Amino acid sequence: MKQLSFAVIGAGNGGQAIAGHLALKGYKVNLYNRTYQKLLPIIEKGGIELEGEVEGFGKLNVITDDMEKAIKDVDIILVVVPASAHYKIAEDMLLYLKDGQIIVLNPGRTGGALEFHNVIRKREDLDVVIAETDTFIYACRSSMGKSKIYKIKEVVSVAAIPKDKTQMVVEALNTAFPQFIPAQNVLETSLNNFGAVFHPTPTLLNAARIETTKGNFEYYREGISPSVAKILEKIDNERMMVAKALGVNTISAKRWLKESYNAEGENLYEAIQNTKAYVGLLAPQTLDCRYIFEDVPMSLVPMSSIGKEIGIKTPTIDAVIHLASVMHGKDYWKIGRTAEKLGIQGMTAEEIIELVEGKRKEVTIA
Amino acid sequence: MKQLSFAVIGAGNGGQAIAGHLALKGYKVNLYNRTYQKLLPIIEKGGIELEGEVEGFGKLNVITDDMEKAIKDVDIILVVVPASAHYKIAEDMLLYLKDGQIIVLNPGRTGGALEFHNVIRKREDLDVVIAETDTFIYACRSSMGKSKIYKIKEVVSVAAIPKDKTQMVVEALNTAFPQFIPAQNVLETSLNNFGAVFHPTPTLLNAARIETTKGNFEYYREGISPSVAKILEKIDNERMMVAKALGVNTISAKRWLKESYNAEGENLYEAIQNTKAYVGLLAPQTLDCRYIFEDVPMSLVPMSSIGKEIGIKTPTIDAVIHLASVMHGKDYWKIGRTAEKLGIQGMTAEEIIELVEGKRKEVTIA
Repeated sequence: MKQLSFAVIGAGNGGQAIAGHLALKGYKVNLYNRTYQKLLPIIEKGGIELEGEVEGFGKLNVITDDMEKAIKDVDIILVVVPASAHYKIAEDMLLYLKDGQIIVLNPGRTGGALEFHNVIRKREDLDVVIAETDTFIYACRSSMGKSKIYKIKEVVSVAAIPKDKTQMVVEALNTAFPQFIPAQNVLETSLNNFGAVFHPTPTLLNAARIETTKGNFEYYREGISPSVAKILEKIDNERMMVAKALGVNTISAKRWLKESYNAEGENLYEAIQNTKAYVGLLAPQTLDCRYIFEDVPMSLVPMSSIGKEIGIKTPTIDAVIHLASVMHGKDYWKIGRTAEKLGIQGMTAEEIIELVEGKRKEVTIA
Repeated sequence: MKQLSFAVIGAGNGGQAIAGHLALKGYKVNLYNRTYQKLLPIIEKGGIELEGEVEGFGKLNVITDDMEKAIKDVDIILVVVPASAHYKIAEDMLLYLKDGQIIVLNPGRTGGALEFHNVIRKREDLDVVIAETDTFIYACRSSMGKSKIYKIKEVVSVAAIPKDKTQMVVEALNTAFPQFIPAQNVLETSLNNFGAVFHPTPTLLNAARIETTKGNFEYYREGISPSVAKILEKIDNERMMVAKALGVNTISAKRWLKESYNAEGENLYEAIQNTKAYVGLLAPQTLDCRYIFEDVPMSLVPMSSIGKEIGIKTPTIDAVIHLASVMHGKDYWKIGRTAEKLGIQGMTAEEIIELVEGKRKEVTIA
C-alpha cells in the first residue's frame, strides 16, 4: 500500500495535534484553516511542536486557507472543526473533491456524516466516502503551533456512509492509528454521543453559578448533584430509546463511565462522583461555550429530530433545547441538525437504516 | 354591622400570624390544623403571642383539628395553607359549609378559587362565596404559638367568584384589615402571580448549587444571573400573554419590582439586582421546597393549562414543568391544577370570563 496523504481541516486544538502527530509519523499532511491569522505562527515554524504523550516536531507539507490547495490529491481528509462548521466545510470543499477520497469527521457529534452526505450528494457523480468518529482521538490542548497531547484514547469508533465502506476506512486509518475500530454504522457513532448527555444539561442547570463564579467550581463533581443526575439519566434514556428504534447497540452513560473509566455506582450520580478523570475539572467560564452552542444544535437537536421522524418522544431533550434557546436568544431548532438537514425527513426507521447502509439509492437530491 | 367571626384554616407561618392578629383586634377566631400535634403548644398558651409590627397576645376561641367545629357558624373562613392543600381542604369542609359564609384563600396561587369553586359547587344548593388574594398579607415567621410579623403589606388584591361578590368580600375583610382592595376578577389575582416567575425557574436552574451548598448563596442576587433572568422574562411574557387573552390587566415582573420595591432597571436582571428587599435572602436549603412542589403544580401548571384551552402557547413554562417533574420523579402535570381540575376544560376565553363573572350558570357538575 502506498503511503497515504492527509488533509487536516481546522487548526484548533485537535487539528494541530493530529496534523503534527501524522507528520511526525512521516505522512504528508496539509493543514487548512479558514482564518489565515491562526495559521501564521504555524507557517513561521513550518509545522507543529508536540509534547505530552508524543514529543517532537511534525513538519507539514502545505499550510493554507485555500481549501482547493489543502485537499488536492490527498487520500484522507480529516475534518477537525466544531460540528456547527461541518455544513459550511462540506459546501466549501464540494467543488474540489475527487473520486476515491475519504472524508472523516472527527468527531461527527450526532448526524455529522449524514449532514455532510446530504451536502456532498449534490454532486451525483462524485464517488467519495464520508465517515465519522464517535469521539476525538486525543485529549489535547494546542495553540500557536504547539500542541500538548495529554492522552491518546485507546479506542475510537468510526463508521462510513455507506456502511460497507467502513472496513476500508478503518484499514486506511489504521495504517497511521491502530486505535480506530469499526462501528455498526453512522447511527451508532452518532447516537453513542455522551457529550449530548454530559454537556448541555449540567451547563444549563448551573447557568447562574457559571455566570456569577466564572465557572469556578468542579463541573462534574459539584455541578452534577443527585437531582441533576436524575435529569441526565432521563436524557440518556431518551437517547437510548431513539438508538434502539434504529437498531443501534448503545450503552447507557453509566455503563460508558464503567467501560471508559472503570467508575462504578448504583446510579449515574454515583458513577460520575466515582470517575477519577473528572476530579478537578472546572466548569466553562462563560455560558457562551461549546457545551451549549455546539452540543445543543449538533447533538440534542438531531436526536430529538430523528426521534420525531420515527415516533420516539424526547420531552426532556426538547425542554433543554428550548431553555437553551431562550437563554441564548437563538432558535437552536433552526440552527441545528434537523431531520431535513440530515436528509431523512419523512423517513421511517427502516428507511433511515437503509440510507446509512447504502441500500437506499433512490433518494432525491435536496 | 355585627362583629364578624373568623375561622383560620392552617396553623403554619401565616395561619398563626393572622389568627393571632385578628384575635388581638378583638375578633372571635377559631384556628384549625389538620395535624393535632402542631396545635398543642397553641392550646397550651390559649392563643398566639405576637411580636414585630404587632405586639401582644391574641386569645383564640377554638383551637381544633375538627373541621366542623372550626368553621361552624363563622362568617369568614381564611384558608392559609399551601395551595397544594386547597383541594383537600375544600373537600374536607364541603359538608359543613353554610349559606352566607365567605371563604378566602390566602393566597390562591393560580386558579385556587376556581379549583375550590369546582369542588364546592358539588353542593348545588349551597350559597357561599369563594375568594382568593394575590399574596399573603404579611411577611412573617411563626412556630409553637409565637409569631413574628416582619411586615404588613400595604395592599393585597382580592377577588371573588362570582365577580359581583368581590365588593362585599372586600368590605367584610376591611372591617379588620384596610389593606384589602378589589381586583378585576379571580383571573387577575391568579395571573398576577409573580411567585410563578421568581420561584421554580431559578430553583431549577440552581439545582446542583442548592444541593451541593445547601442553599448557601443569595437566591436573587447570585441565583438569578443575566441568562437566568432572560428565561424568567420569557416565562413572565408567557404569563402575560395568557392574562391578556383573558382580558386581565397585568403588569410585568419588572414593573412589579418597580411598584413594590421601587427597583429600577433596563431589564429584569437589573431590576432584581436593584431590589434592596432581596439583598441577603438565601436560597432554599434543599430542592424539596415549596418553590418547586407548590409553585410548579399550583402556579405554572394552571398557567400552561389555561393557556392551552384558549390557544396561548407557553413553551418555556412547559419546559420548566417537565424538568421539575423529572427532577422530583413526580408528574407535576397530574398533581397540578389542570383545566379539568379548575372546571374550565373545553372552554373558550370568553366562557372562562363568563364563569368567573358569574354569567355562566349552565355549567355541568364535574
